[in-house]
Amino acid sequence: MTAAKFIVIEGLEGAGKSTAIAICQQFLAQHGVDFINVREPGGTPIAEALRSIVKDNHDEEIASETELLIMYAARSQLLHNVIRPAMAKGQWVLGDRHDLSSQAYQGGGREIASNTLDSLASIVLKGLKPDLTIYLDIDPAIGLARAKGRGELDRIEQQALSFFERTRTRYLELAKCDDSIETVNAQQSIERVHQDIITVLDQFIKSNH
Amino acid sequence: MTAAKFIVIEGLEGAGKSTAIAICQQFLAQHGVDFINVREPGGTPIAEALRSIVKDNHDEEIASETELLIMYAARSQLLHNVIRPAMAKGQWVLGDRHDLSSQAYQGGGREIASNTLDSLASIVLKGLKPDLTIYLDIDPAIGLARAKGRGELDRIEQQALSFFERTRTRYLELAKCDDSIETVNAQQSIERVHQDIITVLDQFIKSNH
Ligand SMILES: Nc1ncnc2c1ncn2[C@@H]1O[C@H](COP(=O)(O)OP(=O)(O)OP(=O)(O)O)[C@@H](O)[C@H]1O
Ligand SMILES: Nc1ncnc2c1ncn2[C@@H]1O[C@H](COP(=O)(O)OP(=O)(O)OP(=O)(O)O)[C@@H](O)[C@H]1O
Ligand SMILES: [Mg+2]
Ligand SMILES: [Mg+2]
Repeated sequence: MTAAKFIVIEGLEGAGKSTAIAICQQFLAQHGVDFINVREPGGTPIAEALRSIVKDNHDEEIASETELLIMYAARSQLLHNVIRPAMAKGQWVLGDRHDLSSQAYQGGGREIASNTLDSLASIVLKGLKPDLTIYLDIDPAIGLARAKGRGELDRIEQQALSFFERTRTRYLELAKCDDSIETVNAQQSIERVHQDIITVLDQFIKSNH
Repeated sequence: MTAAKFIVIEGLEGAGKSTAIAICQQFLAQHGVDFINVREPGGTPIAEALRSIVKDNHDEEIASETELLIMYAARSQLLHNVIRPAMAKGQWVLGDRHDLSSQAYQGGGREIASNTLDSLASIVLKGLKPDLTIYLDIDPAIGLARAKGRGELDRIEQQALSFFERTRTRYLELAKCDDSIETVNAQQSIERVHQDIITVLDQFIKSNH
């Protein structure tokens, strides 16, 4: 294994991202990989403050462009202060969401133009791209039912089902035309999802040896 | 007077913006203009929360791009929830800072590329531009000495003098090539500055009748 790798788990609310992260952590540890965990939006004190602003309920409506810019501000901070320094030291990074979430939620869900997203991605990412993204595909109604079982829904989780349908459609479109994104059917049993994730990780490790 | 106008006061810390706002308020009231006051970054609860993030001191370094995106997120929110609705109702808007501050501070001070600023401005402003900007020009050392007299300096006010020199240079360059920006020498006595501002406002009102 040569340079540090960046692995991201993506999917709608309740798709099983946190569950998949635990699987990946175990896998990486077993393979002796030195890695850190991050989540987006968030992962630094300032980025977590920005996360609260977009996740909390407010009396004031948040404009789509404001939400978009806050997401990229948080991502910028995490990249600058955590992800880039870790990778420079050779540590792998395991991310709960990254840029694909903005493309799917803000691009698909909020219907923000692709060239707007492209401008921001180029300002913030400066060409950095995950080496592997595991996209957990799920019907939003099923995912939201799972998420509800966990507690109160936040501002984004309270969006209409049509918002999540558009988000899922965009995830699937993006996954189809990017070889670094592996789609896993997240509606299967936890055991089957677990197995599919291990298959993807095994393949990734082999092709990077 | 036809449509609602957007007037902005700009300048370095301690240039006398708040003092100039008071002069403009009195002038507009005397001319029977219905107007609102806004300040940037800030002006809505969410935008004020973003203001705190950039103005407060943190243990964590704020990346230049993060600062830039937070400034535009706050601007987006203010435009969406306050400035555009007010102007749509025919109210004038009197602003303490606006987009020119990002061009000068983030573009000049932080040396962020112009095309980066242009992308963000086009996403957020969507062509809206102040009808009149009064730029209060001052040597940063003099402005900072005035600001210090008022209390503790915030994170941005604590930047090196060279940062403010670059910011001032950019302000002057931008003012030179934009007819809607009027430069006032803010190193004069309050009385002379007052007089210069009234001259600019009189001229603006006449040319808009
Ligand atoms: N394949 C599965 N089948 C059934 N339930 C599952 C499955 N995977 C995860 N769950 C359960 O669904 C709930 C949500 O899972 P998890 O927290 O991993 O999702 P998430 O994608 O991280 O959600 P969020 O977007 O809110 O962070 C948990 O209670 C979890 O145990
Ligand atoms: N022309 C002037 N000559 C001397 N002092 C001035 C002049 N204009 C303003 N001041 C004083 O300088 C201080 C800063 O002025 P003011 O608060 O108006 O600046 P500001 O540009 O709003 O600052 P900030 O950027 O911090 O908001 C105040 O104490 C004010 O009374
Ligand atoms: Mg989770
Ligand atoms: Mg002031």
